[in-house]
Amino acid sequence: MEDTIAALATAPGRGSIAVIRISGEKARAALEKVFYPKNPWEPRKLLYGFVRDDGGVVDEAMAVYLPAPHTYTREDVAEIHCHGGPVPVERTLKLLFEAGARPAEPGEFTKRAFLNGRVDLAQAEAVMDLIGAEGEAAARVSLDLMEGKLSRKVGELQSALTDLLAETEAALDYPEEDLEEMMKPALENRMAALQGELQKLIDNANIGRVALEGFKVVLAGRPNVGKSSLLNALSGTERAIVTAIAGTTRDTLEETIDIRGLTFRLLDTAGIRETQDTVESIGVARSRRAMAEAHLVLVILDGSEGLKAEDQAVLASLEKGKGLVVINKGDLPDQMEDGELQKWAPDIPIWHVSAKTGEGLESLKDALYRWALPQPLGSAGLTHERHVLAVKAALASLMRANAALDGDMPVDLLAMDLHECWEHLGEITGQVYNEFIIDRIFEKFCLGK
Amino acid sequence: MEDTIAALATAPGRGSIAVIRISGEKARAALEKVFYPKNPWEPRKLLYGFVRDDGGVVDEAMAVYLPAPHTYTREDVAEIHCHGGPVPVERTLKLLFEAGARPAEPGEFTKRAFLNGRVDLAQAEAVMDLIGAEGEAAARVSLDLMEGKLSRKVGELQSALTDLLAETEAALDYPEEDLEEMMKPALENRMAALQGELQKLIDNANIGRVALEGFKVVLAGRPNVGKSSLLNALSGTERAIVTAIAGTTRDTLEETIDIRGLTFRLLDTAGIRETQDTVESIGVARSRRAMAEAHLVLVILDGSEGLKAEDQAVLASLEKGKGLVVINKGDLPDQMEDGELQKWAPDIPIWHVSAKTGEGLESLKDALYRWALPQPLGSAGLTHERHVLAVKAALASLMRANAALDGDMPVDLLAMDLHECWEHLGEITGQVYNEFIIDRIFEKFCLGK
Repeated sequence: MEDTIAALATAPGRGSIAVIRISGEKARAALEKVFYPKNPWEPRKLLYGFVRDDGGVVDEAMAVYLPAPHTYTREDVAEIHCHGGPVPVERTLKLLFEAGARPAEPGEFTKRAFLNGRVDLAQAEAVMDLIGAEGEAAARVSLDLMEGKLSRKVGELQSALTDLLAETEAALDYPEEDLEEMMKPALENRMAALQGELQKLIDNANIGRVALEGFKVVLAGRPNVGKSSLLNALSGTERAIVTAIAGTTRDTLEETIDIRGLTFRLLDTAGIRETQDTVESIGVARSRRAMAEAHLVLVILDGSEGLKAEDQAVLASLEKGKGLVVINKGDLPDQMEDGELQKWAPDIPIWHVSAKTGEGLESLKDALYRWALPQPLGSAGLTHERHVLAVKAALASLMRANAALDGDMPVDLLAMDLHECWEHLGEITGQVYNEFIIDRIFEKFCLGK
Repeated sequence: MEDTIAALATAPGRGSIAVIRISGEKARAALEKVFYPKNPWEPRKLLYGFVRDDGGVVDEAMAVYLPAPHTYTREDVAEIHCHGGPVPVERTLKLLFEAGARPAEPGEFTKRAFLNGRVDLAQAEAVMDLIGAEGEAAARVSLDLMEGKLSRKVGELQSALTDLLAETEAALDYPEEDLEEMMKPALENRMAALQGELQKLIDNANIGRVALEGFKVVLAGRPNVGKSSLLNALSGTERAIVTAIAGTTRDTLEETIDIRGLTFRLLDTAGIRETQDTVESIGVARSRRAMAEAHLVLVILDGSEGLKAEDQAVLASLEKGKGLVVINKGDLPDQMEDGELQKWAPDIPIWHVSAKTGEGLESLKDALYRWALPQPLGSAGLTHERHVLAVKAALASLMRANAALDGDMPVDLLAMDLHECWEHLGEITGQVYNEFIIDRIFEKFCLGK
């Protein structure tokens, strides 16, 4: 941690400006060896000047020096804003490395912000999520966490646990008083309330994860019902190759669309049908797997042809509560028999659309949005698998504590379980961590972050 | 020009920070509507705060306000440094557009810097060249122009022309004095000196253009002499597919390598030989064209096989003074007969290498560098075709002036030619310009520059 680090902080590639960030004790010294301002240095002031080496001018640039502790890392920070081409960036970085800095590892700036207490672990993750966000829903959820929404929730739960612990420890100190027996009903109530809160976090975890990672929809159906056309109509592009020959789509194709700020990952799949063609049968196997992994399966039917045996097979393969029927080709005469459809698709919502004319597509999009986010974005709490696992572990500890109370087990066992519960929650914010987990989280960050 | 413009100034894509730049009268007003700093505004001070819309926080960010005239555009400039993801960037830009700014066109910031007199046209082009530079040579030459090297040279030439003009105009004012005849020898001398300087700029134009655009080398030779292996050995990658089957390389493959900071564009070509294969014969036609367009052709021979009829055909097709023979496979027993080679490759430098062991490659690289830059980088002046055309036009005007003087033409014709010469030079720095040319130059810039 004594090292001074430097890296390109803006996206790689060509732009007007590139920002090189330096952090650590020697940030200012390194900056002053490399950058020569036209006016005297002044903290936080963006100065015009030149990056120079022994041979002369390396770039015309701007630079700023930000003294600790009100900086991104809470260390001394400096920035050089040079021209956004690879040569000026590489040469300026090389000079900084010669001047005492070393290349930063991916995520190392944010890791320092975490280790120096400026942000907690959930907030640090949220910064990365915000940068990676594809839609406004993902950005919204990330911003909430960045601002500390989850961290505050964890804090509240932990402080309730601390109160519980204090009381059970009081019972531990005076066993002869039989305090435990007197307090039992009150403790039970409070533990039940806590359990409810943890369970709610787990129940709502999908909201945050869907917002962040996108909602996976598989377009399933026999060949030639118009899956690719529908995908194109929904996404507004021409990515999938649409032809009238059955079996054109052999691979799974992912298309990302944005509905009211939420990202949907639409997977077109090979038509599900019996086939002798090896390549195509691999495609069929893939599409079955995609259906299993999806949040929702849209079964596409051809309204102009009525229900075929192959359609029935697709409907029969649907997992319960995970399907939506879309009857396509609404622009052609309707041959679909409602009774027959009801028989094969009981309790499955049905939408009528025409990929060709666009009819019904907007209301299908609305239905998809409501399906993906049955609750408002604001009820999102957990956003990562890591968070969910920690809350589940905390809940398990709490349930063990409850069982200990019920079974009149020694009070110190109860206290241990409550403490474990507190610690699992602390994993979310990084109050409790091990180097290995921290490294794994930050190495996923981009360079310069 | 009254508009306030805004655009992403850093490279597109994901990074830790993205810089959004605003320029124009309403820069500060737009900034203040969008960004809420924690501390009060102060010019040039990088402030921490939040980008907000009606719904709340859009991003945690830094911002700075730089009042005119000491800014990139000489207008009021502001910057918001938000998180480097597409959603925060798009949302912040959208807010700025709602707050009175409009999207900047490519190159519009630098165009304003030019129109407001902060840089001349040659300097503005050099900024773009620096960002696009692939190697240090390109960056060096661009930096020199950015600092005003070519602009100063143009200024010197123009001031010499102005002196000449003043003297010829004096002759024009007093025709009865026969001043012209008295001054003729002196004028002739000075015009000859100027002609020499313009000619030198044209002669050295290749240095700047090669530094900036790279030196094009074609690797020619019959199939299976090891062109692809040599390309790989020189570039240190495995891009070309190397096999022992003659005729594997059907397309031209460009590989960029850096030798002492200079960029070389190495083109591997289809082996030149008679063939019935349509695809391959297209490749052969392409390789002949590539040879014609190249700065240098490396004829690769297989030292372990001696000179074949096909090799002779390649050597015979060489343009004079544009070839270098490379005898490859130095790791195998040498079967090349020197007398035979001399017959087919008289006056062509010969290098012995082994792509397999790397033997001779470093000295081949040195030879390539000397061939590409026979004069030092510092003697570069012109870097663009546009500059060369302007100097050629200036030279033509000067030669017309000289002819007018020689032919005892009226003094006002001589003055007109000298003035034309001055104007052609002014095209380089943009003292003389038309909207169309200016637009064409700046629209090649990247967005946000």
